[in-house]
Amino acid sequence: MIGTLLAGPVRVVNLGLASFARDLAAHGTAVAQVDWSPPAGGKHELLLALAVLEKDAVEKANQAALQKILAAEPMLADVRRAGELIPELDGARLMLHAGPPIEWGRMCGPLKGAVCGAIVFEGWAPDLAAAEKLAARGGVQFAPNHHFGAVGPMTGITTRSMPLLVVENRAFGNRAMCALNEGLGKVMRFGGNDAEVLARLAWLRDDFGPLLGAALRPAPVPLNPLIARGLAMGDEMHQRNVACSSLLMRILAPAMARVGSPSLPRALEFMGGNDQFFLNIAMAMGKSILDPARGIAASTIVTAMSRNGTDFGIRVAGMGDAWFTAPVEMPQGLYFPGYSAADANPDIGDSAILEAVGLGAFAMAAAPAVAGFVGAGGFAEALGYTRAMSEIAAGRNPKWGIPALEFAGTSAGIDVRRVVETGIAPAINTGIAHRLPGVGQVGAGIARAPLACFEQALTALAQHAR
Amino acid sequence: MIGTLLAGPVRVVNLGLASFARDLAAHGTAVAQVDWSPPAGGKHELLLALAVLEKDAVEKANQAALQKILAAEPMLADVRRAGELIPELDGARLMLHAGPPIEWGRMCGPLKGAVCGAIVFEGWAPDLAAAEKLAARGGVQFAPNHHFGAVGPMTGITTRSMPLLVVENRAFGNRAMCALNEGLGKVMRFGGNDAEVLARLAWLRDDFGPLLGAALRPAPVPLNPLIARGLAMGDEMHQRNVACSSLLMRILAPAMARVGSPSLPRALEFMGGNDQFFLNIAMAMGKSILDPARGIAASTIVTAMSRNGTDFGIRVAGMGDAWFTAPVEMPQGLYFPGYSAADANPDIGDSAILEAVGLGAFAMAAAPAVAGFVGAGGFAEALGYTRAMSEIAAGRNPKWGIPALEFAGTSAGIDVRRVVETGIAPAINTGIAHRLPGVGQVGAGIARAPLACFEQALTALAQHAR
Repeated sequence: MIGTLLAGPVRVVNLGLASFARDLAAHGTAVAQVDWSPPAGGKHELLLALAVLEKDAVEKANQAALQKILAAEPMLADVRRAGELIPELDGARLMLHAGPPIEWGRMCGPLKGAVCGAIVFEGWAPDLAAAEKLAARGGVQFAPNHHFGAVGPMTGITTRSMPLLVVENRAFGNRAMCALNEGLGKVMRFGGNDAEVLARLAWLRDDFGPLLGAALRPAPVPLNPLIARGLAMGDEMHQRNVACSSLLMRILAPAMARVGSPSLPRALEFMGGNDQFFLNIAMAMGKSILDPARGIAASTIVTAMSRNGTDFGIRVAGMGDAWFTAPVEMPQGLYFPGYSAADANPDIGDSAILEAVGLGAFAMAAAPAVAGFVGAGGFAEALGYTRAMSEIAAGRNPKWGIPALEFAGTSAGIDVRRVVETGIAPAINTGIAHRLPGVGQVGAGIARAPLACFEQALTALAQHAR
Repeated sequence: MIGTLLAGPVRVVNLGLASFARDLAAHGTAVAQVDWSPPAGGKHELLLALAVLEKDAVEKANQAALQKILAAEPMLADVRRAGELIPELDGARLMLHAGPPIEWGRMCGPLKGAVCGAIVFEGWAPDLAAAEKLAARGGVQFAPNHHFGAVGPMTGITTRSMPLLVVENRAFGNRAMCALNEGLGKVMRFGGNDAEVLARLAWLRDDFGPLLGAALRPAPVPLNPLIARGLAMGDEMHQRNVACSSLLMRILAPAMARVGSPSLPRALEFMGGNDQFFLNIAMAMGKSILDPARGIAASTIVTAMSRNGTDFGIRVAGMGDAWFTAPVEMPQGLYFPGYSAADANPDIGDSAILEAVGLGAFAMAAAPAVAGFVGAGGFAEALGYTRAMSEIAAGRNPKWGIPALEFAGTSAGIDVRRVVETGIAPAINTGIAHRLPGVGQVGAGIARAPLACFEQALTALAQHAR
């Protein structure tokens, strides 16, 4: 750059808005354009809020939140019926979904598709058409998974009879739950709802779930070391869980064989055939790690990021259980043969809890193969994502090292202040669902969390802090 | 470097032998030392041999060998009793071992320990003392695994009743075999021979081997894609097989459950508890890939590297089944607590077949964790090993990409000419055995193949080519 400045006939150096440079160039003036943007996009209100929040009390609160995140000891401990774990599910026609709260009328296509499938699965309506009518006339209550200690990928539907994975955070005694991963193809999390989808859910409920629960209860699986090994083996635990799924199989297969079941061969085949089996475990782990930081007054650290396919919502430690929402964005990515961006539903799922805990796109440098899968390039680009995301992180997790960064720890905690100040929106590695009910996955890509969520949260935190 | 030359009071620039520079410096002369060594160490006879072998016929032969290596389709197909696969083992008191041929008197400690253990295991003597006497008086015949289509890690003992893994190369119809990996701790491959070692071997023979064979025969496992996935997950398949062992478990556990056996829980636990389970499969695969290149006239590509703990031996495509041997070197590495280099046995095992096929130290860039485990540094050093080894390789294998090199293929084929010309000795990632019989593994490190083996092979190839 300096070389160019010395050598060329430069008369004007323009910082920031490129349009000035273009105007000058159009009038024949030599211009050197330097990329620059003002902090917080130069917005006066946000700069004031940032100034209010640059104080010791916030730093201390964030350190307290960070220490809780880093002290977590998540264990995969059990699989049980959802109604047993969340009694409210047995008390009413209650259905949990991904993302912040949303009513039926504003739900996107795949979420409506999954809702209707789950209504039929629970026997609340005889078929999909009747299910849609039931939902439309208010015959089912809806609430976010996050309101009941749970998470779910994509549509994230949780109903009473589904088996849920239980991750216990032994350091703080809290737990988080997530439904079992259904595999690829037509599945409810991508809006699938036909007979094949419901038959698989019934098998998970009647055979696989109880077998896995019985295998886990005598010997819970510590997850910190599993994640550390997975990062050294190319997983980022969002779009790639090959290593953790495989390592877990080595632990669970003997335990399941000791329990014994006529379903054992099918159960091992189901688990062994699914590279993403671990995803749902990683998600429950993410929530179990971040939940203890909820409600730490003055902390600007993000405790959840989540999408329902219509709205993107975040929660911040210092603001308890409040949601800060904005319209969800479209992922940029690669599509399966026969599909294109025109088929895509906007970003959806509770799985952004993984980025909130420093995995997924934040740990892309550990998983260069994912960069290719989501259309983001190769090894160099994967390093770039991880470096960029570290600029908005509150700290590093020394337990989870990335080999290509000489085992430097993953990011830990997203600081709302850094997001607003830098304008770097958290990147999220995501699957892409078809926008219509009943179709399923059509691709994978990278979505961005809307800056508006973080700007709202920052403003609210500053009001609290004044 | 140029900067230093311009800035300093340099009067003499010395290339090569540092002693000249030291002498001059001692007399007060300013000297700039430039590292350089002449091709083939400047040895006249080797330079002549290299000149003889720099011709089209050799290039063509090497391309033919390389095409065979790259066309391989190795499948893990079976596990059977050694005597069934190698009838000679049932016909006499024959015992196969790692490395080139060696008689009892010249065997190292761990090899003698394993031989005695195997004699007891086969019931040829009642105890270790009697076994030693039997071996010393010539009561057992010894031959290399390589002479019977087999390989074995470390001591590499193969006897009639042991179960052998069978890898078939479907592209050429050949097969290669290897005993099952016994796990870590006291094991025969590191010279262990006590009751615990023999009891485990008996269980492998009576329970695990037959179960695994029955699971494999209906559904052989293609190994090319497994290696490709493993390289993307941090394995180099010599000192690190975590990914491939785990991925294989996902394939084999359901198949073993379908066969059914009262041993199933223990079998899954044994397999699931061993990060190196895949090592022996990778070795048989390596031999199955390289064997079709044996006997291609004029080719200077290495078809085997192997050590018996006393001698290092190589075989070269253009020289058929001849061994070129030299005294084996000492690995440089890290020792387990309580052990040091004084306890170490020199380099041993058939496992250097992995480096010959482009894995192990040649693929270290895929496995930065191994660089730490063998005491060779971190990610940067791992990249350095892979880059250095590519200088002596005949080509690249596009099926096996390394993520950190933007998925460039692993090395394929070691060219004896390049080794002699550059003086770059192949590096080998290796376990280190105690030098005494019956102790076991004491560390892990990197050994170098002796240049003398390659110089002998080069001279022989040149004599043939004249």
